[in-house]
Amino acid sequence: MNKVEVCFSPALYKEYENKDAIVVVTDILRASSAIVTAFMNGVDKIIPVGTLQEAKALKDQGYMVAAERDGIVRDFADFGNSPYNFTSDRVHGREIVYSTTNGTQAINLASSGYMVLIGAYLNIRATADYILSHHRDVLILCAGWKNKFNLEDTLYAGALSEMILQGKHFHTICDSVKAAIDLYHIAGENMTHYIDKVAQRERLRKNGLDDVIGYCHQYNLTTKLPEYKNKFITVLDNSEY
Amino acid sequence: MNKVEVCFSPALYKEYENKDAIVVVTDILRASSAIVTAFMNGVDKIIPVGTLQEAKALKDQGYMVAAERDGIVRDFADFGNSPYNFTSDRVHGREIVYSTTNGTQAINLASSGYMVLIGAYLNIRATADYILSHHRDVLILCAGWKNKFNLEDTLYAGALSEMILQGKHFHTICDSVKAAIDLYHIAGENMTHYIDKVAQRERLRKNGLDDVIGYCHQYNLTTKLPEYKNKFITVLDNSEY
Repeated sequence: MNKVEVCFSPALYKEYENKDAIVVVTDILRASSAIVTAFMNGVDKIIPVGTLQEAKALKDQGYMVAAERDGIVRDFADFGNSPYNFTSDRVHGREIVYSTTNGTQAINLASSGYMVLIGAYLNIRATADYILSHHRDVLILCAGWKNKFNLEDTLYAGALSEMILQGKHFHTICDSVKAAIDLYHIAGENMTHYIDKVAQRERLRKNGLDDVIGYCHQYNLTTKLPEYKNKFITVLDNSEY
Repeated sequence: MNKVEVCFSPALYKEYENKDAIVVVTDILRASSAIVTAFMNGVDKIIPVGTLQEAKALKDQGYMVAAERDGIVRDFADFGNSPYNFTSDRVHGREIVYSTTNGTQAINLASSGYMVLIGAYLNIRATADYILSHHRDVLILCAGWKNKFNLEDTLYAGALSEMILQGKHFHTICDSVKAAIDLYHIAGENMTHYIDKVAQRERLRKNGLDDVIGYCHQYNLTTKLPEYKNKFITVLDNSEY
């Protein structure tokens, strides 16, 4: 049997760390939704960076850079972090630098696992199917908000956990999984209504960036699975499925 | 307005730390329920210690000691950590050393707040009333399980948050509070049925210690408010209310 666990914050990661697990990192509003969108639209490679200094240095080397802080696009950047920016005409066949506050930290931590996938609702079925076809533990790592618990990542963790636990060789004794599934059920079919109460919605709204919320909660727009490996995110080779 | 926040694990405490807040520490199964029971039964003072070495040293100095690990009472101890052990004939008027894995760490961290209360269902109304009569932020700190999220402390945090948010001068933008309240509502009137699925129930059951679960989920057996201050837990002076 393989176990399913959910970690609600990068600050809790070492309590859940599992070198044998497929780690699914999520940051629904907005990093992981943006990254999945970029691969859906044909990006070749994403280089996630944690600091604006790194992003700027790579911009100076000629990379296309997505970078913002607190909703404000940085002047050196090509565009901000909204999934809407990762259009096919901009990203197809390119290498993009993506600077994100919460997402990068989570991705780096996760790399102690067996493999790291970037998960969002946009590719949730493909993510679950990949996991279901492998005999590995699974750890879903929520990026959270500045190391705090957040609801939007938790709901996704509940949705994905439930899909994985359909598989006969998966089980859980993890209270975080049970809480996430129950919260996902409460949100239910009216997900975006429930999301109205999350703190991140208000943060995005203040900067006029909450237009992405409906988009980020759409299911299965793509089967692309972004994988983080050796400091880069690339699409998982289909032949490996 | 005063804010209400919930911290799901001692490992997240520094993200939520608030020096102006009344911090309510909870460890429903079983430390905070045992401590509240002890004060209900007239204990004079509790000395919480984190390590068995400290507990043993204090035993050698003549203190009565409650100490166990993983459900096994230590041979030097007078009794284990079950609330049932803190009977009036044993504890009335005494000073007791209490050794607990998760609870002590949480209590020590919480002492950076304005004041530290020990909360359980057994005294939840009195805890809420005390908070409602003061204009202070509130932080509910769940002891969790070895720094992991746990459901039983979360449900209590939801119950207490909801009572506090009845007060007009309290508000929250904390996703943890919202999740805790929603989970508390799911558990609803059939709390002990819901608790059947928490990991701690299984840990207690394996050691024949799950007989306390019903007891630890009883409301308002006492109005006593244990307060941690200067390394000791004593009952909050009624005249301060």
